[in-house]
Amino acid sequence: MNVIVTGAAGFLGSRLANALLAENSKLPVSRLVLVDLQEPPSYNDSRVTTLSVNLADTSAADRIIQSDFHVLFHLAAVLSGQAEVDFDLGLRINLDATRALIETARRKAPKLRFVFTSTVGVFGGKLPEVIDDLTAVTPENSYGTEKAMCELLLNDYARHGYVDARVVRLPTVSVRAGTANKAVTSFASGIIREPLNGEVSVCPVDTKQQLLLASPYTVVQNIIHVATLPADALGSWRVVNLPGICVSVGEMIEALREVAGSKAVSLVKFERDEMIERMVASFPTKWDNTRALRLGFVVDKSFVDIIRHYIRDDLKRKV
Amino acid sequence: MNVIVTGAAGFLGSRLANALLAENSKLPVSRLVLVDLQEPPSYNDSRVTTLSVNLADTSAADRIIQSDFHVLFHLAAVLSGQAEVDFDLGLRINLDATRALIETARRKAPKLRFVFTSTVGVFGGKLPEVIDDLTAVTPENSYGTEKAMCELLLNDYARHGYVDARVVRLPTVSVRAGTANKAVTSFASGIIREPLNGEVSVCPVDTKQQLLLASPYTVVQNIIHVATLPADALGSWRVVNLPGICVSVGEMIEALREVAGSKAVSLVKFERDEMIERMVASFPTKWDNTRALRLGFVVDKSFVDIIRHYIRDDLKRKV
Repeated sequence: MNVIVTGAAGFLGSRLANALLAENSKLPVSRLVLVDLQEPPSYNDSRVTTLSVNLADTSAADRIIQSDFHVLFHLAAVLSGQAEVDFDLGLRINLDATRALIETARRKAPKLRFVFTSTVGVFGGKLPEVIDDLTAVTPENSYGTEKAMCELLLNDYARHGYVDARVVRLPTVSVRAGTANKAVTSFASGIIREPLNGEVSVCPVDTKQQLLLASPYTVVQNIIHVATLPADALGSWRVVNLPGICVSVGEMIEALREVAGSKAVSLVKFERDEMIERMVASFPTKWDNTRALRLGFVVDKSFVDIIRHYIRDDLKRKV
Repeated sequence: MNVIVTGAAGFLGSRLANALLAENSKLPVSRLVLVDLQEPPSYNDSRVTTLSVNLADTSAADRIIQSDFHVLFHLAAVLSGQAEVDFDLGLRINLDATRALIETARRKAPKLRFVFTSTVGVFGGKLPEVIDDLTAVTPENSYGTEKAMCELLLNDYARHGYVDARVVRLPTVSVRAGTANKAVTSFASGIIREPLNGEVSVCPVDTKQQLLLASPYTVVQNIIHVATLPADALGSWRVVNLPGICVSVGEMIEALREVAGSKAVSLVKFERDEMIERMVASFPTKWDNTRALRLGFVVDKSFVDIIRHYIRDDLKRKV
């Protein structure tokens, strides 16, 4: 398979690239084009080429989409916190650039499997206790709005047979390695990652706030999995909620205590941030994983397990 | 109030203009700008000006939106049948032109009440028996997709306080006066209108097919009503399903028989059309009118009643 990844220098994008290049990759890769705003890190692997592209440029889609490619993982996005304060940039990248990519795929590579990462943030407002794939999408943030618009558009392109689109809605990803990003849920990694590194982390929401979480490992496996499914596996609505587990901030902190002790926990400080609190509170916290699990997607066991994986795989420490 | 109507030469647009100019209009009008592709018919009323604009032009939105206007009724659209076969035109008019209008309103007239007519056709796929305002939107037609994308976008503009957007989802409108249009539900008027005129009408779907219907009179009253509501009346999701009644094609024909006799009914011929059948079957047939009625929207009494109103008001005949 010839594969393109956008947002390849990002946290999930680089994980995805590593997983695709691994010997045991579920998706065998002959060529891999890694695309990002800044040139993604080079790999010592002859299959890999890198491409520096600004998705805001009108020529971007045409430079990215090549007719002899089979799968596109479109991960590049302006994240939720930034899309909320820079409304125009959010629309331009999250909506317009995605539209340009799918329209270019329609013309140049109509059989392309176009994998698009959407978000738990498409949901908001008056929600049932448990979300399923057919819960109404009434987002209360611009990032979720733009992603939801793309879901509709991609689904219609797929319905017309213009492109083989597949959309996965990502839970909040935790524990992310590296540094804080511009997602409003960035704290969901920070409150674990920083204390494990002996640093203070600020939590902007209450301990009672629940989150729908998945580990980076699980999310990457699931993003690859959706590209391996037969075209008709998702049915007429080509959007699936990726499995996640419901964990409160308090439970996350207790998991941190179990794995790393009370000294680590003491490094978590609480300073409420109204915008973050409001946006995070509008996200769903539980969803029905039945359809996703039946389609072969995987789910994490527990948040303690997620922390242990992070320590082993990212910190390269013994648990 | 200074008011703009797009699609003002169309069936609903011209009805809306008449209702706004009537002495008993619920929305008192000082100036009324009627916009359409072809110059709308002129009125012998000093409040009215007309404007010929192609919404596909990049200058269109700037010509339409004026800073001293209070309400925009944006009715202009590429209808469902045409949007399905001319995908690019549908996106350009139904999505891009609407976006240009709201973005221009944000810059030039941020307090504008932006009334947008969406459709029962945003729904499709696996639906509950009764739709409510929070049923998931998974359209199986491009027109519905484009309208659903606009709903999300308008709602987000409203949430940011950029424009005072209000979205009403229209049931299928019947009985439309005039001639067939490019909506896939055009037959829902044709099978009544043509026989009442002594002409044959072709019905492309089975008698068992149910439709969610509203009369032109009721729909126009409701479109005006949404513009008169306080800005916060719709809550955080500024979309409302306009009341409709569930009627099968068989029941429509029996209503025609009751009002106009069996000779009229004998003029309805059945020739199934697969595309129309598929698209119409994907639309919802019942929805929960509770929220809409509580907000003061009105609903038709029965389909017999709708036919009688059509005969009296449009054909100017005695019932």
